[in-house]
Amino acid sequence: MRIALDAMGGDHAPGPIVAGAVQAVAENPELSVVLVGDRTQVELALAAAGGRLGDRMDLFHCTQQVTMEESPVEALRRKPDNSISRTWQLLAERKVDAIVSAGNTGAMVAGGLRLRRFLRGVRRPGIATVMPTLRGPSVMIDVGANVAPKPSHLFAYGVMGSIFARHILQRERPTIGLMNVGSEQAKGNELAKDTHALFEGSPLADRFIGNIEGRDIHRGACDVVVTEGFVGNVVL
Amino acid sequence: MRIALDAMGGDHAPGPIVAGAVQAVAENPELSVVLVGDRTQVELALAAAGGRLGDRMDLFHCTQQVTMEESPVEALRRKPDNSISRTWQLLAERKVDAIVSAGNTGAMVAGGLRLRRFLRGVRRPGIATVMPTLRGPSVMIDVGANVAPKPSHLFAYGVMGSIFARHILQRERPTIGLMNVGSEQAKGNELAKDTHALFEGSPLADRFIGNIEGRDIHRGACDVVVTEGFVGNVVL
Repeated sequence: MRIALDAMGGDHAPGPIVAGAVQAVAENPELSVVLVGDRTQVELALAAAGGRLGDRMDLFHCTQQVTMEESPVEALRRKPDNSISRTWQLLAERKVDAIVSAGNTGAMVAGGLRLRRFLRGVRRPGIATVMPTLRGPSVMIDVGANVAPKPSHLFAYGVMGSIFARHILQRERPTIGLMNVGSEQAKGNELAKDTHALFEGSPLADRFIGNIEGRDIHRGACDVVVTEGFVGNVVL
Repeated sequence: MRIALDAMGGDHAPGPIVAGAVQAVAENPELSVVLVGDRTQVELALAAAGGRLGDRMDLFHCTQQVTMEESPVEALRRKPDNSISRTWQLLAERKVDAIVSAGNTGAMVAGGLRLRRFLRGVRRPGIATVMPTLRGPSVMIDVGANVAPKPSHLFAYGVMGSIFARHILQRERPTIGLMNVGSEQAKGNELAKDTHALFEGSPLADRFIGNIEGRDIHRGACDVVVTEGFVGNVVL
């Protein structure tokens, strides 16, 4: 698997970001990484981390970066050669299989929205996080990419979360729960009710356990917790 | 202060409810309680708790009760002589200063919505809860009464929460924070943005500290945490 990494994104980048990439490539012989960022800074960080460019470690040079404080959309417009946009570009051009950034979340989301290189049927990006529970880790999505979602977006988060749970958390048939204010079907706001109906009428119905409440997250009631970004972000 | 208590509401009611009333009246000479519920059951519970009807302990008999599982609105309609409706009625007739129920939350809220005996300017009930924080208790409102609030409802929760914080938590000038997904003014969904503007332009502006994030609740960033019921309920 070939992954483009935003070397300029994250606290104290590029140092710890590049060092992590060196470590990951050393540990996993099937992994190759494209470091996206300023050539001089990335090469310095690479030398400091004891790594070097070669077979499974490439560099894609760009001259700009989005800081953590910047307004995402504005930053992407004002800085066309920023590392987040270039990382997305590598994905769009199918030069990598996946991308990673620890930088400005809003810019990462906005960059994806602009390119629209989503899975089939997916219209909005979501941020997933792994939550510790009494029954092992589960994945919660969305925790802040989309604060005004439609039911179809939440449904797509259930699909994406299930794929994550299957491949990363090794759950063969991941169960899905919908974050709500009560377990009964009629509970919640319009978004929750409509999303509930969407899951019930879908091919995922047999893995949809229905509504869950806040306390159910840490109880490990399901493998995938689907929630709107506003709620998920506050919970996180 | 004279308080009507729904003696039939709550787990194992009326026993522990009535016992609590006996204890409260004994401890506070300024308190009087009206026990609302089935005469026979309440008198038995009263005898068991070592209390008796008298100067500061009255009984208001009613024949029905809403269970925890019932649909609130339907239960209130089907059981006109239920203890929650009778408790609200005592407030509406100004026979008591306040009412208390540990019973069906939805029915308690629906009973209040029906009578509309709110503070001036308040259009929707809210459920407040006291949260432990690193800097002492703070009050969070709403935690589930209203899952489709307007900005004006959230603003009223800020007013009500401030009154609570002043009188119950002894904060002379309570500070107010708005639950959001980031501290910047432009963050969040439309509800959060519009509510932010409402607080900023109000007489409460000097006590409004702006947006807070989930982690700020337990940090004790403010005395009053204003949030929509859906989010507050999940957090709770």
